[in-house]
Amino acid sequence: MWTWPSRRVTDKLRITLPIIQAPMAGADSPDMAIAVSTVGGLGSLACATLSIDSIRSAVARIRKETKNSINLNFFCHTPPIEDAERERRWRDELSAYFAEFGVDAQAHLPFVNRAPFDADLCALVEDLKPEVGLPAPDLLVRVKATGAVILSSATNVAEALWLEAKGCDMVIAQGAEAGGHRGTFLTRDVTTQTGTFALVPQIADAVKIPVIAAGGIADGRGVAAAMMLGADAVQIGTAYLFCPEARLNPMHAKALSSVRDDNTALTNVFTGRPARGVVNRLMRDIGPMSELAPDFPTAGRALAGLRVAAEAQGHDDFTNLWAGQAAALAHPLPADELTRQLAQDAQTAMERFGLFSPAVSS
Amino acid sequence: MWTWPSRRVTDKLRITLPIIQAPMAGADSPDMAIAVSTVGGLGSLACATLSIDSIRSAVARIRKETKNSINLNFFCHTPPIEDAERERRWRDELSAYFAEFGVDAQAHLPFVNRAPFDADLCALVEDLKPEVGLPAPDLLVRVKATGAVILSSATNVAEALWLEAKGCDMVIAQGAEAGGHRGTFLTRDVTTQTGTFALVPQIADAVKIPVIAAGGIADGRGVAAAMMLGADAVQIGTAYLFCPEARLNPMHAKALSSVRDDNTALTNVFTGRPARGVVNRLMRDIGPMSELAPDFPTAGRALAGLRVAAEAQGHDDFTNLWAGQAAALAHPLPADELTRQLAQDAQTAMERFGLFSPAVSS
Repeated sequence: MWTWPSRRVTDKLRITLPIIQAPMAGADSPDMAIAVSTVGGLGSLACATLSIDSIRSAVARIRKETKNSINLNFFCHTPPIEDAERERRWRDELSAYFAEFGVDAQAHLPFVNRAPFDADLCALVEDLKPEVGLPAPDLLVRVKATGAVILSSATNVAEALWLEAKGCDMVIAQGAEAGGHRGTFLTRDVTTQTGTFALVPQIADAVKIPVIAAGGIADGRGVAAAMMLGADAVQIGTAYLFCPEARLNPMHAKALSSVRDDNTALTNVFTGRPARGVVNRLMRDIGPMSELAPDFPTAGRALAGLRVAAEAQGHDDFTNLWAGQAAALAHPLPADELTRQLAQDAQTAMERFGLFSPAVSS
Repeated sequence: MWTWPSRRVTDKLRITLPIIQAPMAGADSPDMAIAVSTVGGLGSLACATLSIDSIRSAVARIRKETKNSINLNFFCHTPPIEDAERERRWRDELSAYFAEFGVDAQAHLPFVNRAPFDADLCALVEDLKPEVGLPAPDLLVRVKATGAVILSSATNVAEALWLEAKGCDMVIAQGAEAGGHRGTFLTRDVTTQTGTFALVPQIADAVKIPVIAAGGIADGRGVAAAMMLGADAVQIGTAYLFCPEARLNPMHAKALSSVRDDNTALTNVFTGRPARGVVNRLMRDIGPMSELAPDFPTAGRALAGLRVAAEAQGHDDFTNLWAGQAAALAHPLPADELTRQLAQDAQTAMERFGLFSPAVSS
């Protein structure tokens, strides 16, 4: 019977494949989580952009379809303090765009907010009892009391040690290749963010809790390689964006269809927090990193009208096109088939090495 | 008999271990190359900062000690055009340092030049006949005629395809984690440089020639993981800086002794070309990337006096402290022992997976 090299994550999460579908705010879906969890991976739902009612109904739907473990994901940032002067400077920086697209530079349109985990969400979690979660430290005890396993992201060894010390059950080693938001919390410096290849073994050496590799993994070779580096499991995001279960803005879907290894960058211009996306006009013009971008998540507020106006003309100039550096390895497959294929290809890759061994007596 | 998963590199280079000691200008040494080549890896000598006479005597010494393959490495950049105005702006940028250290802001001291591969070096190569080399395209035919195998670095898929089309025999997939200079030549944008984990499989899928993974590899786990991702061999630099055969500036040695996963960055302030090093004062103050830095390699000219003055006071403020993101994984070992241990640990890691297979009939 073939087994995975490590079962520290799978046993604790009660899953059969060491593959976690990454929570992706706005792009994942209950259908995606159902598909992944049904075949034995861990399906995830990003909750930061959802109302409490939406989370409740999404979880109800998932629970109806599968009894397997699921992962609810929350942001744990400190809510920004409103800073009118910074907002003014940011809108000044964007003034040429407001003129070009005929958008009111002072309008405060609805924008995609990301709510931090708070007492209300904690009460919801206590009610819903997901198997896996990712809460703020002060609510950790309450979430743990529900029986949930706590996962959180680290982008360097110091953050991994911090999470372990605070009681996280497993750490996600998020390499710089990863698409979407960085989990960074002890530094604001993107120039020192570490690649997956260097990060995973250093975190695996530093902590005792299981390590989940993320960033740059989009096929079975990556799953196998992550395990060679010392990971107990992997978390994969971008590859799941190619599944029919993903909810993609048409601009995002188009960008992903021609994504390359070398056309994404870390940027803060869309939300105020560094995230990796396909390079587009706004990133090229004023970024990819801008010191003027207001704190997460408010940088997006001034862009809301520009985004609507540009998208109406078929332009992705102001649309965040999250993608990791391995996006081009992905193929469109239903999320359950993708999960199975990732596991099967990883197993095949690992067994291939076994074939080069002398006769093995198990 | 255990064999490596791929022998495409080892067979062609006539080496027994799929491990290439990276050429490191100023830090590698004939002793290091001898040690690595003697145990079956590929020892390398960076020639860009050496005179023709130095190269000749170094190679003579290596040839005397080992009959195994060696690698001579050259830079292939276009020599910069002198630009007095740019030089003036750069020295302006540094003016506070000149004042602080009492250094003549206009002095033109000797600095570490990097000579591009030219007709004289080509004639030398024709004479010395190294097994492996890395020449400029226009001299490629002549170098190939000596029987040398041509290796060159690519930092993205487009560069790998370019090198293959121009007749390179093997491509080094240099991930963003790598220490020292980037091999980048089709872009100047460091924000889109790809991590090893994402880069290796995408280059392996794109080219037919063998792929050598580099960047973030400092132990046997990394060697094994690189092969899982599709690499035929690996090139390792930073880990060899911890060997007694390395020639290290004392500031560099000190920085390496406390290097972490998260304190290096890509910078152009030392030479004008992006390279990864431990973050120090100059990088923090005016970088890590500066638009004012003159073209490679002349940015270092204005720093020469500052470096001497600061080092005399025990400061590494202006010293380039090249290191990759996996530096902290390295241990001080003689270069031959390190090479053997990398190979042995990689084999052990790969065999470990074999043990999880069902009974294997080879």
